[in-house]
Amino acid sequence: MTNQRNPRGPYRKSAERREQILQAAYEAIDEHGERASLQDIADRVGVTQPALTYYFPTRDDLLLAVLERRDMRGKEIAGAAASGKGMVEGMAASARHATDHPGLAKLSVTLSAAATDPESPAHDYFTERYRALAAEVTQELEAQQKAGALRADQPADHLARAVLAVMDGLQIQWMHDPTVDIAAIAETFARVLAPSAGAGQEAKRRDHPGH
Amino acid sequence: MTNQRNPRGPYRKSAERREQILQAAYEAIDEHGERASLQDIADRVGVTQPALTYYFPTRDDLLLAVLERRDMRGKEIAGAAASGKGMVEGMAASARHATDHPGLAKLSVTLSAAATDPESPAHDYFTERYRALAAEVTQELEAQQKAGALRADQPADHLARAVLAVMDGLQIQWMHDPTVDIAAIAETFARVLAPSAGAGQEAKRRDHPGH
Repeated sequence: MTNQRNPRGPYRKSAERREQILQAAYEAIDEHGERASLQDIADRVGVTQPALTYYFPTRDDLLLAVLERRDMRGKEIAGAAASGKGMVEGMAASARHATDHPGLAKLSVTLSAAATDPESPAHDYFTERYRALAAEVTQELEAQQKAGALRADQPADHLARAVLAVMDGLQIQWMHDPTVDIAAIAETFARVLAPSAGAGQEAKRRDHPGH
Repeated sequence: MTNQRNPRGPYRKSAERREQILQAAYEAIDEHGERASLQDIADRVGVTQPALTYYFPTRDDLLLAVLERRDMRGKEIAGAAASGKGMVEGMAASARHATDHPGLAKLSVTLSAAATDPESPAHDYFTERYRALAAEVTQELEAQQKAGALRADQPADHLARAVLAVMDGLQIQWMHDPTVDIAAIAETFARVLAPSAGAGQEAKRRDHPGH
């Protein structure tokens, strides 16, 4: 994935302007959700709406770029937490990131739902988004399986899709009922993916049948 | 949950008519998704659109009643498969039910996403829907934990919310990419909830420390 969706800005100044607009949109949606207006976003940067349209031809282009940035931040946060304290803390951090930024979480859910329609302009984008996310998470989980930090009795690509599904589904439940502690549920889910002592012993027995 | 959302039909004939309309709407959405028109639904029953409006005042009322029916069918199908062959087959059956009826699955995803907005008229409906589903699944999982058919080292209410989340999330992924085998992924997910041989032995050791 790349943040340079619009190749028309050939100069550095143009790239900076695009980045300013994207960051302003990210912050406006973080604060106000999808109700954030293009005018509000243009005002934050000090440009006109047509200038904004030069960088992001449609509202959807801008919203998808914001979602891309949210995906990236989410991965950084989950990755940082996981590298220190393992997958349980990584998934909890990911859930907390969602509930700390409800406007961005809601953007993700509603854009994704709208794009399930094959005729939606964002349909192909989401197909590729999930494919890329699934591939990345699979790679990460395979590494954890090799390191003995994740149960290795189930295929990593299935577990990766399940992890993504659980995070999507929990965000939806939280939006319907903010009293649901989805960080705690995400932790529980991460725990069922831990290699159990029994499974480890069983694997050892398989590897060293004489012992 | 009940199917009698409109108490205005005091006669049996009225209840039958309501049921005919609901069933026609269910079938129309199963075939054509949300594009199914009220006129098409009215035609299937042989009533006028105003007659339809008598039973379901708004389009949302009708769509939510269809979703309620889908939830019920889904639970019956998952329950029947699970009672014969356990949770793995129950979750796979549930995923297959979703992919066999894409129009109904899409209705569920889009209505739920739209209702995440607290100002949506369906917001309270979905809050209650998830609460009721979570309570039912929790009860079912607690029974399975007692029967030794489900790992008992994690709280049933967390696992229930995770099961609902994974089913929602996998449906979304499948709608973005129908080549993803979500029934197989749901089976993998159900397998990680199975009591591991090691965990079982550990529980036995806890219960009978002398053995």
